[in-house]
This record gives sequence, C-alpha cells and structure tokens, in this order.
Amino acid sequence: MAAVEQLTEEERTTWLRALPKWSLARDGAAIERKFEFADFAEAFSFMTRVAIMAEKRDHHPEWFNVYNRVEITLTTHDAGGLSLRDVNMAKKIDALV
Amino acid sequence: MAAVEQLTEEERTTWLRALPKWSLARDGAAIERKFEFADFAEAFSFMTRVAIMAEKRDHHPEWFNVYNRVEITLTTHDAGGLSLRDVNMAKKIDALV
Repeated sequence: MAAVEQLTEEERTTWLRALPKWSLARDGAAIERKFEFADFAEAFSFMTRVAIMAEKRDHHPEWFNVYNRVEITLTTHDAGGLSLRDVNMAKKIDALV
Repeated sequence: MAAVEQLTEEERTTWLRALPKWSLARDGAAIERKFEFADFAEAFSFMTRVAIMAEKRDHHPEWFNVYNRVEITLTTHDAGGLSLRDVNMAKKIDALV
C-alpha cells in the first residue's frame, strides 16, 4: 500500500469543519463520533453497512457497541495519525445515517 | 422481562471453571474474552453470528473491534452483575470459534 500522508494542522482544521458531528480524539491523531439507534438490530445493521464499506476501502474503524449505541474512532495507522482516508470515511459514514 | 438473579460468588466460581478462556472483569460484575482472527472480514463474520444470537436471546454484548481483534464483555444489567445468561451466552460464543 502506498504511504498515506498525515494531515497538517491546517488541513485538519479545514476538513473538520465539514464534519461537525465528529470530534478530535487522541491529541488530534483520531476523530470519533457517537451514534444512537432505536435498538440493537438498528445499531448492528448500521455496523454491517460500515463494515462492508470499510472492507471495500481497506480502511477499518475502531469501534465499540453496546445495545443501541455505537462509538466509532477513525485513525490511519500507516500515517501515524489522521489522514484524508479518515475524512473520506467519516463523510461516507455520515451519509449512512 | 422477569428479574434475572445475579450469580453468587460460589456459583460464579463453579461456572467460570467451564469457561477457561473468559476472565472476570469489573470487580466480578462481568466476564470478558479477547478473540483474534485472520483479518477484518473474519472478525466481522464472527461478530455477525454473535449479533444474531444475541438478538435472538435478547442478551447483548458490549464489544470492541479493531481490524482482526474483537473484545467481548458480558454482564447482565438487569441483575447488576453476572447472571446465568452471561454464562450461557459465553458458552454459545465459545462454540462459534
């Protein structure tokens, strides 16, 4: 896989404006968003759609689920922090809900 | 739903002997097990099987996934700790892998 470049602080600020529901985490090395659904079936349906998308893009989330809640953290291990891959993935995830 | 009884310390000790791959967590209020798979697709396939089982039994895990790793925590909120429902669920999960 080609090396992935970490976002500069300026790029991060610009891109995050387009992702108002995501917050910076891990000292700027990741972004996270919490989701709440009607019940477990809804939450896991959402996770399944994200999983298929993640596999297709070869970019996988770190995530936690309990019942109707899902917490997603995105970071790019290859870049040692946030990259455009996370931003693009976050946009795709936002489009699902 | 009928009230679910928390396991006594003695029951807990007995039942956990049957679940050698699970450890007590949260001061004995939960059990947890970590799983590792070949890749994300394998990990998420496993999660899907657990999800369907959980929904059917109306007993849902707390779980975390990143790439090929899955960490499952079982506890019974209605009982305020571990119950037989967790033990039975853990056995069913063990049978999947």
